[in-house]
Amino acid sequence: MNPIKVGLLGIGTVGSGTFNVLKRNQEEIRRRAGRSIEIAVVADLNTERARELTNGEVEIVNDANLVVTRPDIDIVVELIGGYGIARELVLKAIENGKHVVTANKALLAVHGNEIFEAARRKGVIVAFEAAVAGGIPIIKALREGLTANRIQWIAGIINGTTNFILSEMRDKGLDFDTVLKEAQQLGYAEADPTFDIEGVDAAHKVTLMSAIAFGMPVQFDKAHVEGITKLAATDIKYAEELGYRIKLLGITRRRDDGVELRVHPTLVPATRLIANVEGAMNAVLVQGDAVGATLYYGKGAGAEPTASAVIADLVDVTRLHTADPNHRVPHLAFQPDELSNVPVLPIEEINSAYYLRMRVADETGVLAEITRILAEGGISIDAMLQKESREGEPQTDIIILTHVTREKHVNAAIAKIESLPTVLSAVTRLRMEELN
Amino acid sequence: MNPIKVGLLGIGTVGSGTFNVLKRNQEEIRRRAGRSIEIAVVADLNTERARELTNGEVEIVNDANLVVTRPDIDIVVELIGGYGIARELVLKAIENGKHVVTANKALLAVHGNEIFEAARRKGVIVAFEAAVAGGIPIIKALREGLTANRIQWIAGIINGTTNFILSEMRDKGLDFDTVLKEAQQLGYAEADPTFDIEGVDAAHKVTLMSAIAFGMPVQFDKAHVEGITKLAATDIKYAEELGYRIKLLGITRRRDDGVELRVHPTLVPATRLIANVEGAMNAVLVQGDAVGATLYYGKGAGAEPTASAVIADLVDVTRLHTADPNHRVPHLAFQPDELSNVPVLPIEEINSAYYLRMRVADETGVLAEITRILAEGGISIDAMLQKESREGEPQTDIIILTHVTREKHVNAAIAKIESLPTVLSAVTRLRMEELN
Repeated sequence: MNPIKVGLLGIGTVGSGTFNVLKRNQEEIRRRAGRSIEIAVVADLNTERARELTNGEVEIVNDANLVVTRPDIDIVVELIGGYGIARELVLKAIENGKHVVTANKALLAVHGNEIFEAARRKGVIVAFEAAVAGGIPIIKALREGLTANRIQWIAGIINGTTNFILSEMRDKGLDFDTVLKEAQQLGYAEADPTFDIEGVDAAHKVTLMSAIAFGMPVQFDKAHVEGITKLAATDIKYAEELGYRIKLLGITRRRDDGVELRVHPTLVPATRLIANVEGAMNAVLVQGDAVGATLYYGKGAGAEPTASAVIADLVDVTRLHTADPNHRVPHLAFQPDELSNVPVLPIEEINSAYYLRMRVADETGVLAEITRILAEGGISIDAMLQKESREGEPQTDIIILTHVTREKHVNAAIAKIESLPTVLSAVTRLRMEELN
Repeated sequence: MNPIKVGLLGIGTVGSGTFNVLKRNQEEIRRRAGRSIEIAVVADLNTERARELTNGEVEIVNDANLVVTRPDIDIVVELIGGYGIARELVLKAIENGKHVVTANKALLAVHGNEIFEAARRKGVIVAFEAAVAGGIPIIKALREGLTANRIQWIAGIINGTTNFILSEMRDKGLDFDTVLKEAQQLGYAEADPTFDIEGVDAAHKVTLMSAIAFGMPVQFDKAHVEGITKLAATDIKYAEELGYRIKLLGITRRRDDGVELRVHPTLVPATRLIANVEGAMNAVLVQGDAVGATLYYGKGAGAEPTASAVIADLVDVTRLHTADPNHRVPHLAFQPDELSNVPVLPIEEINSAYYLRMRVADETGVLAEITRILAEGGISIDAMLQKESREGEPQTDIIILTHVTREKHVNAAIAKIESLPTVLSAVTRLRMEELN
């Protein structure tokens, strides 16, 4: 049988990883797919580098439009990234009847509904395993492996850069800024790390998982996004003393009244497997009503791990593209006309446990005041840590862990606590999840 | 669209779990599958219990032959277990053009080649996600999620009973026999636990994973199978002191000259995630050349976790059964005519590191003799632990960890060591894997 022909848009890290793995494992991949998979053309503005990366073995063009319209191309792999030109090219590829494989989480989290609808009209597949958690086949697990379940929640370490930074902060007791610089030197963080450290990348990914898990359109604009830039080494240390690790989690949870969709630093019990996922590794924990908790762990970024997911999608398309479009795996796990417009809840309405740290005057009655405010707010205390004040120091740190409550109630209580004259600092508030 | 009709063979724990989950989540499952999935008939010898378990909502027959031949049945779910009648019924279902979903690892590990070939001839699907690691979608990960990779090895905790026993032995310092009784009382071990504790169940499962990972027929008869019945609490304790946990692992590894396929108690560094999988949980670690290590964790047994996998297969078949048989996911990941007869290596030819424990006379020169024998056998030592002999006791325990070597060399060295007059016990030998 003729090879299935692939046009590659953009050959950077992941693109060249894809080229190299396809070449190295071509025989094994052909035995699995039933057909060879051949990169027939690569589009990249830097044609010289593209030629080097492909050893002169592949046709190189500098205009991606020439690829998405070429009649001999069966599948377009989009690795340009971003929302702009990538969106236009993906839509044009679909319009030309091409199947699309993409690693572009930003594009799908923001424009996914439009793109999946276009693909549906043309009867083509848009595959995006590489968009979430790199080489971990989490999209497949959610979309196919767990279809029996009413999925209850997902919590994932889905950004390697921030997990590396948090691991280093904890291991070495260093501040965020110091570790960020180290991460940039080591290549674990980009020159402009904003999307990673501010949680935007993780929010793109959890948005996609949320849609697939709960059968709703992608709603990135409703996600609560909070990064790790304001996280203090102190809180990592106190969390540790209380038996918790702090991880940047993408969390989505189904409730009767809507869906929580949020990214933020989170305290997790140190005994959980996911709390022990260190360095640049990723892991996603999924809770389903039948299966219980399942966890998926692996490399979430890098040339070949991401290429692994891109190529798995190429094999899927090769194996299944002749099936009639109504008998394939739906893009968002649920049949397109079965998506429901579940509302994403505002962050004030989420349910979570909380870690509260405050600096107080070392006087009698302070704690009584604080606990009274919490009790009046209906917030019950799970644990408390009062650090002994240092010799001659009239101030001390109090850390309170609460049981699960509504975020707006905690915010209201914090406002009252901060107005106490004996409370000398703003209250540091972190969310905490038991994940069980 | 009409519901897809399922005939269930055998309604015990997993069968009633499947019935309950299909019913509870029917709406969500229909939205995913594009069609309702309906259990139209159940065959069970105990018709009364079957009627109770299905609340009188389903037709019950006592002869499974009536189900596998019924024209209105699209998919047969085989949950009888064992090699005998289950094999006949599965083949008969296939002969009658039914797709088959089964949780029967024993059947497929032993008769898989015959069954997959029959299914191929009739153009039907035999799906078996539930046969390995219960609710964890590991078959899907291996067969579809990691298709880009040359898979190098798999190591899995794939038997919950033995993992529960090992966790308890370690936690409480108890002996195997004591913990087995406790496990039986708690329902974690069956009245006749032979298949679990002797490693046979794990061997069935790793045999299936091996075939899928490496593109070869199932070869259960070549697997090396060793259980945990002879494991001493002492070795768990010493392993702990040296920074290792002992787990019953199913291991399969590809080498240039063949494939290792083995189940045995294994020392694993305590820092690895898989070493921290406790109780009845399962986890599978897969090493691929592109993706690196990925890990899959969850419940490996139980009514609803296993039902989760059975129903995922039902959804897969519902979504994909209209595709032409040459464009589906092949049963063993590789196209049927692309399987290769890779030889399974005899256990003497495996490569592993080793843990050796022996009781020796507390005399000068003993250690020199032992290390000389190892060196002559080309075996290098990674670590050693000599326990101080107790007051007035002329004997002591020596524990040696070796670097990776060929098993036959270790066996030869052990024979020589045991012939030393200063070595007072048989040498306890356990395999050790770094899993990196």
